[in-house]
Parts: sequence; structure tokens; C-alpha cells
Amino acid sequence: MPEIDVCLSPELIHLHDVNGRVAVVVDILRATSCMTAGFGSGVAEIKPFADLESCRKMRDKGYLIAGERNGKKVDGFDLGNSPFDYLEAGSSGRKLAVTTTNGTVAIEKSSGADHVIIGSFLNLEAVAHWVKEAAQDVLIVCAGWKGKVNLEDTLFAGALVDRLYPAFTLGCDAPLVALHCYQGMQDNLLDHVMASSHAQRLKRLDIEKDISYCLQQDLFEVVPRLTNGSLVNVLSR
Amino acid sequence: MPEIDVCLSPELIHLHDVNGRVAVVVDILRATSCMTAGFGSGVAEIKPFADLESCRKMRDKGYLIAGERNGKKVDGFDLGNSPFDYLEAGSSGRKLAVTTTNGTVAIEKSSGADHVIIGSFLNLEAVAHWVKEAAQDVLIVCAGWKGKVNLEDTLFAGALVDRLYPAFTLGCDAPLVALHCYQGMQDNLLDHVMASSHAQRLKRLDIEKDISYCLQQDLFEVVPRLTNGSLVNVLSR
Repeated sequence: MPEIDVCLSPELIHLHDVNGRVAVVVDILRATSCMTAGFGSGVAEIKPFADLESCRKMRDKGYLIAGERNGKKVDGFDLGNSPFDYLEAGSSGRKLAVTTTNGTVAIEKSSGADHVIIGSFLNLEAVAHWVKEAAQDVLIVCAGWKGKVNLEDTLFAGALVDRLYPAFTLGCDAPLVALHCYQGMQDNLLDHVMASSHAQRLKRLDIEKDISYCLQQDLFEVVPRLTNGSLVNVLSR
Repeated sequence: MPEIDVCLSPELIHLHDVNGRVAVVVDILRATSCMTAGFGSGVAEIKPFADLESCRKMRDKGYLIAGERNGKKVDGFDLGNSPFDYLEAGSSGRKLAVTTTNGTVAIEKSSGADHVIIGSFLNLEAVAHWVKEAAQDVLIVCAGWKGKVNLEDTLFAGALVDRLYPAFTLGCDAPLVALHCYQGMQDNLLDHVMASSHAQRLKRLDIEKDISYCLQQDLFEVVPRLTNGSLVNVLSR
């Protein structure tokens, strides 16, 4: 039986062997939610970058550039880190180059995995289905907030464990912690996340509409996967 | 209002500033439970060591030596890592030198804090009371299992947050995660911990009696604190 494990922060990734596993990268507020919304509405490709300058250069190659640092859009970039920006970009079928505070770092740190998949509440069921079909060991990599554990990524990890367990065995205690948090909060995700420190920080940026959007489940049947440094949607159902 | 924060693994301690804080170190299975039981039954002093050899040498200075690696007693040491060993040593009023897989490392990594306190379910209320009186910022440092987050230390963190909140503000999302786990599991701690991966590992060592002992709350009114490299009980009520 394949195993599911959870890495609650990218700072703990060295304790896990990603080799031979599917890594599901999650940054609910808001990188991986944005990416899901983008693919769900027609984005053709997303190229993630850990640094701003490499991302900025992609404009010359015809990419729209999306950049966020500390929750705010980077000056001179086309898109910030709101799912509504991505929905708009998707409708025009554009290619995107993206850099964010936490999400793109988590993708980079997971790149040794057999498959790197983008997960969010918006494509939860599609990811759960894809992972079950793959029948490989899974590591959910939470992007957290500057290395620290955050509530919304932990809740997503719990939600995915909830959909995979008991068809997968649990790799350590982190999946148990995430699962119990999710099961305890699932009827009221928005209130719980709004009370968290990360959301409180983002609230000052006036993005309550974004947070509420990002906590919706199963809006899109897409599974973005990293292939030769680019994310593309591999779901063809 | 002072702040309470939780470091779910010693591998995340670099993200926290322990300076100016009280660090409450916790390794429920079993280092800090053992230490609490030892002080509660008459141990005069406990000297923690991260490495085996420094610990072993303390026998020449009249200390009983306690050593555990991977859940097992180290060959040639006087005590292993069972609270029952410590209760026995306590009754003879001896001084102990101790090294363990996770607990003593967590103590060492916390040593920059203003005060380093030993916490366990066995002295939960005494620690909560001491920390409230200190009225300083608090960081709960979970020892985990070889760097990974474990359930029982997370549950203790949640239990302590439960006793301090809302008199303390929450520093980040980890206290929220721990609190919700504890509140969801508190009526059945033993069953939940026995189902965890760490307990499953320890079960093979036949220590169910130890686990059940370590999950009892408020058996001892002791607060072991690190002073000049040694733990002593600072509670004089």
C-alpha cells in the first residue's frame, strides 16, 4: 500500500526522501490556488521562478509576469498574487512566469520528486484522483510562511489525507496532525483561517475576497505538473 | 500581553528568536516526562548531555547515568528512558546525567532562552502557573522524532496553549494547530497517541505502560529549570 506523508514546512524537507515520490506542493494563500485558477481558466503554461530577476526576464519571451513578495504585487509586474488576476490571464490563454514569497521556493525544493503536482482546495478532488491512479508514495509539501507552519496549508494537507486514507498508509505523525485539524475545522474553514496569523497579516492587505475564493473546493478539474521546469495541466478528462 | 508560540520541531528553531523568552522544552515520550517524574520523586539535579561520552564520564563524579538511543537503554548505563527508572532513582535522592535521542538536543538548541523549563503532561499545571507568573513571551519547543513533528509533543503544546490562552496572544499558526489537535483529542489522548507512528515504533519496544504513565496530567508540582548547565526544580510551593 502506498504511503502518504506531510512536510509541514519547506525547512523540514531534508528529513524526507522525495525521490520515488509524488510531491504535492501547496501554498493555499495564494500561489498554488492562483496557479489552479489560471489553468482552470485557460492558462497554457506557468514557469515558476524562486527569484524576481529571472522571472522578470521572461517578459521578453512573451510571458506575462506574476510577482509577489510579502503578500504584495511586485512593482512593474503584470500580475500579483490574486486568483482573480489569474482567472483574467487564463481567459486570454497566455503563458505565465511566476515568482512568490513561499510557493515557488517550495516547488524548487520539491523538484527531486518523480512528479511535482500543484495542489489547492480548488483542485482537491482532481489531485486526489490523480494521486490514487499514480499509486505511488506521496509527500504533501506545505509552503508555510517564511519557513513557519501555517494553518491553511496544514488544512489542505489534512483534506488530501482525508480523501486518500485509508487507501494510503500514514508516513509519520504530521499527516495525523493535519487530518485532525482538517476534520475539526472543515465545517467552518473560512472562520478558522480568517482567525489565523497568516490571514490576519493578509487582511491588512485587504484580500478577504481572495481568501474566501481560495477555500472553495473542487472548482477546477486540473492537475498542474512540473515538466522540464514548466507547469502544465496533465489532466485530460 | 505576552505571546505564546510553538516550535513543532527543533529543526525549525532558527526561525524563532528564543532570546528574551521562556523556552518550555517537551519530549513526552519520554525524556521530559522522565525528568519530571525524577524531580517529583526526589532527584536533586539532572545534567543533560547531547552526546553519550560526556554523559558517561559523569559517573566518576557520583552521578547515576541515564542514556537512551532510538528508544532503547544504552549498554552499561544505569537508567534507560522509562519514567519508572526515574521514580526509583528519585527515591534515593541521586543526581543524574542524562542523554537521549531527541530531548537533550532540544534542550541544547533552546539554551539561548532567558529560562529553559522542562514540560510534560505530568507537570502541566505547575508549568502553566510558573509561565503565567513569569509573564514573559513563551516558546514551546517540541523535541519531535529525529527532526520530524510528532503527535504527543504537539498535543502537549496544545494543552499548554489551552491553559494559557487567551491570557497570552498566539505568535503564529503552530499554536492554533496544536490547540485544535489537543482540543479534539483530549478526551482520548491515550488511544490517539497509541495510534501515532512514534508510539507504534515504541510499542515494538514493549513500553505501553510507559506511554500510559506519561499521558497522565498534573502528577507532580515541579518546574525543572536549566541553571548553569544543570536542571533543578525551581518550584518552592
